[in-house]
Amino acid sequence: MADKPTSIAIVGAGTIGLSFAALHLAKSPECLVSIFDTRSDLRNYVHASLPGYLTDVDVAQCLARLKITTSLEDAVKDADVVQEQGPENLDFKQKIWPKIEAAASKDALFWSSTSGILASEQSQHMHDRSRLIVVHPYNPPHVMPLLEVVPSPSTTQDVVDRTLTFWQSLGRVPVLIRKECTGFVANRLAFALFREACSLVAQGVVSVEDLDSVVQSSMGPRWTVAGPFKSYHAGGGEGGLQSFMDKIGVTVQACWTASDDDVKKHDVRVDADWQREVCRQTKEVYGVVEVSERDRKTRRVLEAVQDGTLPTRP
Amino acid sequence: MADKPTSIAIVGAGTIGLSFAALHLAKSPECLVSIFDTRSDLRNYVHASLPGYLTDVDVAQCLARLKITTSLEDAVKDADVVQEQGPENLDFKQKIWPKIEAAASKDALFWSSTSGILASEQSQHMHDRSRLIVVHPYNPPHVMPLLEVVPSPSTTQDVVDRTLTFWQSLGRVPVLIRKECTGFVANRLAFALFREACSLVAQGVVSVEDLDSVVQSSMGPRWTVAGPFKSYHAGGGEGGLQSFMDKIGVTVQACWTASDDDVKKHDVRVDADWQREVCRQTKEVYGVVEVSERDRKTRRVLEAVQDGTLPTRP
Repeated sequence: MADKPTSIAIVGAGTIGLSFAALHLAKSPECLVSIFDTRSDLRNYVHASLPGYLTDVDVAQCLARLKITTSLEDAVKDADVVQEQGPENLDFKQKIWPKIEAAASKDALFWSSTSGILASEQSQHMHDRSRLIVVHPYNPPHVMPLLEVVPSPSTTQDVVDRTLTFWQSLGRVPVLIRKECTGFVANRLAFALFREACSLVAQGVVSVEDLDSVVQSSMGPRWTVAGPFKSYHAGGGEGGLQSFMDKIGVTVQACWTASDDDVKKHDVRVDADWQREVCRQTKEVYGVVEVSERDRKTRRVLEAVQDGTLPTRP
Repeated sequence: MADKPTSIAIVGAGTIGLSFAALHLAKSPECLVSIFDTRSDLRNYVHASLPGYLTDVDVAQCLARLKITTSLEDAVKDADVVQEQGPENLDFKQKIWPKIEAAASKDALFWSSTSGILASEQSQHMHDRSRLIVVHPYNPPHVMPLLEVVPSPSTTQDVVDRTLTFWQSLGRVPVLIRKECTGFVANRLAFALFREACSLVAQGVVSVEDLDSVVQSSMGPRWTVAGPFKSYHAGGGEGGLQSFMDKIGVTVQACWTASDDDVKKHDVRVDADWQREVCRQTKEVYGVVEVSERDRKTRRVLEAVQDGTLPTRP
């Protein structure tokens, strides 16, 4: 892929597809992107929507490297990478990969952006199942650095390596997930905290807005700088995480036990009674969220943590 | 407290005590701080340690407003606020509050920095139990904006209001916790995610270092800008959180169920077998963490999200 401009086929022009297209066009000044979707207004839709994802770059120069097509074969035939974000539906994915495989070059990387349908399931009808790998973004991928790279047991090490190298060279954060599992890692972690958040609001311990304030003024900034293991390891001083657990393990276990009890007591399952009030309160507090403002602030936060040269203002 | 400089008594000169002392001295250019502890080398210890917490301020000017004393009465007698961070030990706290109450002025606010011993328990032997309130920081308080304000059922609304107003006027983020509960809110949330993190590492799904990378490049920055409710509410588009749950509730529940199953299967309780390997891996990856670098970066992140005027660099 080093000798000529990289060519990337985006299969599925939803918000994730457009966000990835924008990321590639903006981050790699020479790469070519083709976008495939079956929607009849595809060209107008992409030209209307894509510029919104292209911030701080020459939009016309980006669009000049873009092909828009309703032919899957046309989209993938010259691609070095085929990146799929069609419907989250096993049948769709099992049917499209053999078509992509038949039309694409034999060296092309095959990436699914799925948030939960394993590569080992998606690849069932492929000729060569070793080519498929999940590359799950954190939404929206043109802003957020994380990509969860999840091979199936059949995926070759070469595919894993080339996938990790691609994203590292773009300055993103690809993370290898070593075993296929329900929900991968980021959502598993986020939903664990979210369940506790729902439970505490459902119990009336804290309001929706105050709970968000808690996270924004504590874990959010802390975990931007150091993840949970590094944070608690630091919290243990010289003895590290082991000291931390020795010192406050009793409190940690008390919290875990209380969480389990409360989740049961307040029936914190999806679609149970608590959900209506939590959704109502959230809507009342936030109305419709302005995501462009969120994304702008997120970029600033990411710059702040990455750039070692910025001085702290007094 | 408005007519003369605010006077704050810090009871217990551990790391939290010094961090709070530094916060008050640095944030309120006129306030007076007295530090009480029973350690025999108190004066030398405070003079050696406190400057490390005083960044971007005139250290000599701060120290000139500091009193260091091994007499509890001397520390609290003129205080507008008495802030306790002694040992996390119910007996200690139950015994010290009546002494503080006897020595302090009748209007002084009484705050405990405890991470888990409820005000309703601590205040058992006080003459007036309505004065005590928990003000639990996120460590270290001279950096992190959050204060969890947790009244007991006896605490007066006046004490709650004055406490919230104090911290708001300092530009911090005091959050009212409406019911006393195990671990309050921040630790409950953080430990819920931490349990899931431990579970996923114990299963070999992801390494300690990679798990931290996941959090630092996704939830950390996202939740710095918008807490979990606001984030998922945005994720649901115009229909908000309710739409989000309608669309991906099945995935959320699948993750919750998988988490519960895995925690049981891998026996993820404090001090069980998984803990040794997770602690070993953490130590191997991180050694001893440089917290001053962490705190410097955290300040930059907090500035980036707070300051609406900073442009995003291209």
